[in-house]
Amino acid sequence: MRTEVTIQGLHAALTPVRAARKSIGFVPTMGNLHEGHLKLVQEANQRCDVVVVSIFVNPTQFGAGEDFSSYPRTFEVDSNLLAEVQCDILFAPSVEEIYGSQPQQTTVQVNSLANDLCGNSRPGHFTGVATVVSKLFNIVQPNVALLGEKDYQQLAIIRHLARDLCFDIDVIGIPTVRAENGLALSSRNGYLSPDELALAPAIYATMQQIQQQILTTVDHSKLNFADLAKQGRKTLEAQKFVVDYVEIRNPDLSLADQEGSKWVILVAAKIGKTRLIDNLTVIRPAETLDS
Amino acid sequence: MRTEVTIQGLHAALTPVRAARKSIGFVPTMGNLHEGHLKLVQEANQRCDVVVVSIFVNPTQFGAGEDFSSYPRTFEVDSNLLAEVQCDILFAPSVEEIYGSQPQQTTVQVNSLANDLCGNSRPGHFTGVATVVSKLFNIVQPNVALLGEKDYQQLAIIRHLARDLCFDIDVIGIPTVRAENGLALSSRNGYLSPDELALAPAIYATMQQIQQQILTTVDHSKLNFADLAKQGRKTLEAQKFVVDYVEIRNPDLSLADQEGSKWVILVAAKIGKTRLIDNLTVIRPAETLDS
Repeated sequence: MRTEVTIQGLHAALTPVRAARKSIGFVPTMGNLHEGHLKLVQEANQRCDVVVVSIFVNPTQFGAGEDFSSYPRTFEVDSNLLAEVQCDILFAPSVEEIYGSQPQQTTVQVNSLANDLCGNSRPGHFTGVATVVSKLFNIVQPNVALLGEKDYQQLAIIRHLARDLCFDIDVIGIPTVRAENGLALSSRNGYLSPDELALAPAIYATMQQIQQQILTTVDHSKLNFADLAKQGRKTLEAQKFVVDYVEIRNPDLSLADQEGSKWVILVAAKIGKTRLIDNLTVIRPAETLDS
Repeated sequence: MRTEVTIQGLHAALTPVRAARKSIGFVPTMGNLHEGHLKLVQEANQRCDVVVVSIFVNPTQFGAGEDFSSYPRTFEVDSNLLAEVQCDILFAPSVEEIYGSQPQQTTVQVNSLANDLCGNSRPGHFTGVATVVSKLFNIVQPNVALLGEKDYQQLAIIRHLARDLCFDIDVIGIPTVRAENGLALSSRNGYLSPDELALAPAIYATMQQIQQQILTTVDHSKLNFADLAKQGRKTLEAQKFVVDYVEIRNPDLSLADQEGSKWVILVAAKIGKTRLIDNLTVIRPAETLDS
């Protein structure tokens, strides 16, 4: 595995790759890698000739009072893990390499999607994400970008961004990797105390309950998404979560359509100081629809 | 010359170009070509192996009440002119090809620069420009983009955009082409009546007066840019122009620095219904600085 810390170095590494017309798969990360990230790299290896992983803790997607300075930076361990899963190039630039020394004036905004759900409680977050991803897409110029479905809204925003700005890049979402108890793997799980870690799987359990209630409601017209979401919120609040939102939406994040057959349950909730997010897709089998 | 109207067609045309590692020069235009545009194509031919010119009247950079629907569309004539100056590929997409059939959510904003000068009187204009240029850059993926200096603020914004979003593209400004009477060539000159056309060169003449006054003011401390701009405004208003702005700025469009040695005079003014813009750079020779 080759490690590059400058844009110029990365370009030099990728020039022969492009000249040989090999396909490039790209996995953008903020490091502190877990099995979810490694699965993205494995999937990239299945689909592409060369895999580039970036590790960059992007300051512009953290708000005031958020965990930018304390976000776990574990470069040595990450680098070893990436070499094990056949990452070809690790791109680990400094903040100055990505943002330069002069003030940046350009932002990329994915308007309506960015002011919803996590965007409500993290103003500016998705503008930071969309801007840095645009930069990274232009620097790496991959054929395929792979992102985890755990960050469902982020994935939706990056898909929109790629389509709207005509990036010639396939954006592929990869299913969330979970611990045996259902907890979605996340770098922020490392902030949890043992007690909090024992509590955290309740998010997934609550989403599963909502999923079951949707699937067992045979009569469409009796589906009350607002009520199901409210029940989910109460379940979590009873377990000392501070709930940001429990929402049931269409797959494109528009307001849930009762006549649909596929939805996504989305949760954001704090345990102590740690904000966790997760989601679960519900697909109503066709036979239920016909009944 | 090959003409492509779809993104897919353009990609197909450019794939062998890229495979052969030939350099691509790109000239984005809104058509209704004049000698200024043709000079951009000639300059692109000097610098690059293959020249792509786009003709796309971009709806999102026109405000309500502006001239989107009446903007001159002269495709046949443009196409013949481009063939004569050895344009290799003409890219002439429809609005739907660029913006798709689904609503677009993504915009690119070059913040402080876009809310100044022309941005004040044309809200949203530069967001439209920055967004469509980002799309075109991603579609064409050129090595070099060539733009006219007549649209000084637009050029500054696209330079910022390219740098801030890490596009691997050299953005090159090409000097304004003028009629013998000094009028900057512009598609919008075609809107002018014979009387208005006779009046229009006063913009350049007024900028030249300001330039002379700056160059003949030996003592730096006596340079009063606000006063010079006000005089220029009065000169134009006395000739029935409705002046949007006369400004003297540093080359990066920040407020003019008395101790500097290079500035740009910028004018936007209406004659009748037609809004014209122009600019002139002033460079103080080193010997004056030393005196």
